[in-house]
Amino acid sequence: MKNCIIAQSGGPTVAINASLAGVIEECLDKNAYDHIYGSLHGITGILDDHIIDLGEKVKNDTLFIDHLKHTPAMYLGSCRYKLPSLDKDASVYEKIFDYFEEKEIVGFYYIGGNDSMDTVLQLSKYAKAHNKDISIMGVPKTIDNDLCHTDHTPGFGSAAKYIATVMKEIAYDTSIYPVPSVTIVEIMGRDAGWLTAASALAKTSYGLGPDFIYLPEVSFDKELFLEDVKEKIKTKRNILIAISEGIHDADGNYISASGTATDSFGHSQLSGAGKALEYFIADEMDVKVRSVEINLPQRCAAHLSSATDLCESAQLGRTSVRAALEGHTGEMSVIRRCSDAPYQVAYSTEAIEKIANEVKNVPRDFINEQGNDVTEKMLTYLRPLIQGEPAITYKDGMPEFASLSHLY
Amino acid sequence: MKNCIIAQSGGPTVAINASLAGVIEECLDKNAYDHIYGSLHGITGILDDHIIDLGEKVKNDTLFIDHLKHTPAMYLGSCRYKLPSLDKDASVYEKIFDYFEEKEIVGFYYIGGNDSMDTVLQLSKYAKAHNKDISIMGVPKTIDNDLCHTDHTPGFGSAAKYIATVMKEIAYDTSIYPVPSVTIVEIMGRDAGWLTAASALAKTSYGLGPDFIYLPEVSFDKELFLEDVKEKIKTKRNILIAISEGIHDADGNYISASGTATDSFGHSQLSGAGKALEYFIADEMDVKVRSVEINLPQRCAAHLSSATDLCESAQLGRTSVRAALEGHTGEMSVIRRCSDAPYQVAYSTEAIEKIANEVKNVPRDFINEQGNDVTEKMLTYLRPLIQGEPAITYKDGMPEFASLSHLY
Repeated sequence: MKNCIIAQSGGPTVAINASLAGVIEECLDKNAYDHIYGSLHGITGILDDHIIDLGEKVKNDTLFIDHLKHTPAMYLGSCRYKLPSLDKDASVYEKIFDYFEEKEIVGFYYIGGNDSMDTVLQLSKYAKAHNKDISIMGVPKTIDNDLCHTDHTPGFGSAAKYIATVMKEIAYDTSIYPVPSVTIVEIMGRDAGWLTAASALAKTSYGLGPDFIYLPEVSFDKELFLEDVKEKIKTKRNILIAISEGIHDADGNYISASGTATDSFGHSQLSGAGKALEYFIADEMDVKVRSVEINLPQRCAAHLSSATDLCESAQLGRTSVRAALEGHTGEMSVIRRCSDAPYQVAYSTEAIEKIANEVKNVPRDFINEQGNDVTEKMLTYLRPLIQGEPAITYKDGMPEFASLSHLY
Repeated sequence: MKNCIIAQSGGPTVAINASLAGVIEECLDKNAYDHIYGSLHGITGILDDHIIDLGEKVKNDTLFIDHLKHTPAMYLGSCRYKLPSLDKDASVYEKIFDYFEEKEIVGFYYIGGNDSMDTVLQLSKYAKAHNKDISIMGVPKTIDNDLCHTDHTPGFGSAAKYIATVMKEIAYDTSIYPVPSVTIVEIMGRDAGWLTAASALAKTSYGLGPDFIYLPEVSFDKELFLEDVKEKIKTKRNILIAISEGIHDADGNYISASGTATDSFGHSQLSGAGKALEYFIADEMDVKVRSVEINLPQRCAAHLSSATDLCESAQLGRTSVRAALEGHTGEMSVIRRCSDAPYQVAYSTEAIEKIANEVKNVPRDFINEQGNDVTEKMLTYLRPLIQGEPAITYKDGMPEFASLSHLY
């Protein structure tokens, strides 16, 4: 028997299940495996012997794949488990590969972001070192768009489309009162400003939309920020500002109203950059000011996903399977952009060593000189990624998603 | 010449422009007026002689009405202007009616919520007292659904659809990690819990969706709340809770982390009920806890509006015009529900005295006995209101709205 296991890890997006669908579809099209298993809650499902048979699921539920492609979060559940380094604790690795042998697994597909690709790196290293006959492949996923060696990442285009659309709607909402106002919208993005930059797509020809955009790639100066706002409000009544949650001063201190707890990967857990600036403006200016966090919907609003993003996410899943069947291992599928207009991409794979634990920030020339807006280069990069609205089915006025009952 | 003026006031919704479109369309269909004017920023546009010719706009832009019906916020701009009481200051009234005479206005349509209907009441009283030959009509609008003598209000169905959908997506997002968690979602609603109740539509057959729903109609007891959560988490890993911003204790004190500034109508400006409960749970329980404010999108997310809501909003605009042409004045158009299934409604008008400054709260039997969820009666009431997805046109991946350039 030749079987495979698919798992998902990291933070949710609206496209990661499209990648799962792509992996499953390619496995079935190529008739590559006897069993297509899904490990629940990432790598921990393998450690806890908690897997399901996805091939059976597809057989028994003809609409499953269609619904899966539009289902937010993770059908297989997630985890925040970081593998111990091999020299510190080999037993976890032995347990995982014993399980692979027991289940006759020759292909392992891990769909996730930066930290998940580290797991792919460690497992593929171990497999090579111990001559294990298994292909360990990564499929990218992150709304943050901060993975290297791929033009962009699955989930980003949909998050960008949601952020741009909601920013446009907020711009409409905040422009109707004849009193000066400042609205600060805080957008996800700890180290990379890609998501916040997407708010620039909301700009209209007559100046509605974000007036200033501040990304973590440029040090944030509160005094220059105050000058920007004071100058702008002389000519525009209602000012809209987009900021990344991760903006920080020149010394690297986050502009934040809250503490700095850290997750298991050592990332600071942020909140409140918007609040902090709201209080700052309220102290310094006589103007109506409010801050808004778009919050969880920017990573789970499947009802407004990008058809381009969902299609590419599925293709990246298929690409990893094709590469595995050709004998590749320790690689992640990537997107190469061939042209902006017409928008054309090509799919391939890259060695995981190049990708894991690396972060792709916004290039400086995608940000204007003053560091308070993005350039045309950024808009040219972003525009194709939000194109198209997927045909989501609604039932009783609500979008239909695949059931997560198996996670309960 | 016989002309009319239309104005909009109060907080934005995604349906108030559909009502504006309905008023305009009925005026044109009946060829009722020589000029259809729009007053910018509510009643203040009349005081400042700031009006536009909507009839001309329709003539010159054939797509205007179509785009208008899907455009969030207010095409004519809004205001928070409260008329002085007549005995205190008659000059404002004289100025308004002098302007009506000068512009040969025989019909005035005010689209707005509770406070706007007070303006309709005061103006119609004055008109009657001074034998002015003008029909003063209200068209309802409020996401809060708290206007009396109408089954529901324009804007509510769309806000309900957005809240229910986002709650479902957040339920998916928060259910993927195998660690106990509590997520508290704060929803708009100062005095009435209608919007928060709509989160109940997100419940799935297998128990995904809000586990508890707390409305301002029932006094909030922090200790009972803590008991609810502690008991539920014994059997469910990821708990989702919906609360109204206006929940308060038995003494009427808001559960809030913030101060109590008041707007020009004396309403407390709230925020932070969710934050307050997040800190409370974090102190009392050893679980991952977060709070989320859905915030502005619940009143401006035109991309996910309810087709039923937009259609009814336009019909209510038409109904007020028809009534005015039949000689009615000092009334507001209303919806009467004839049956739940099949969902059928009838349109009529009601005397504004009955409606202005009255608040329609959630009936007690729409809330369960413990006061921590809604009943089937509420779901039966809500379901028809979120049905249908309007055909919104997208351009370059973004929804197309009518331009607000004239407000700049």
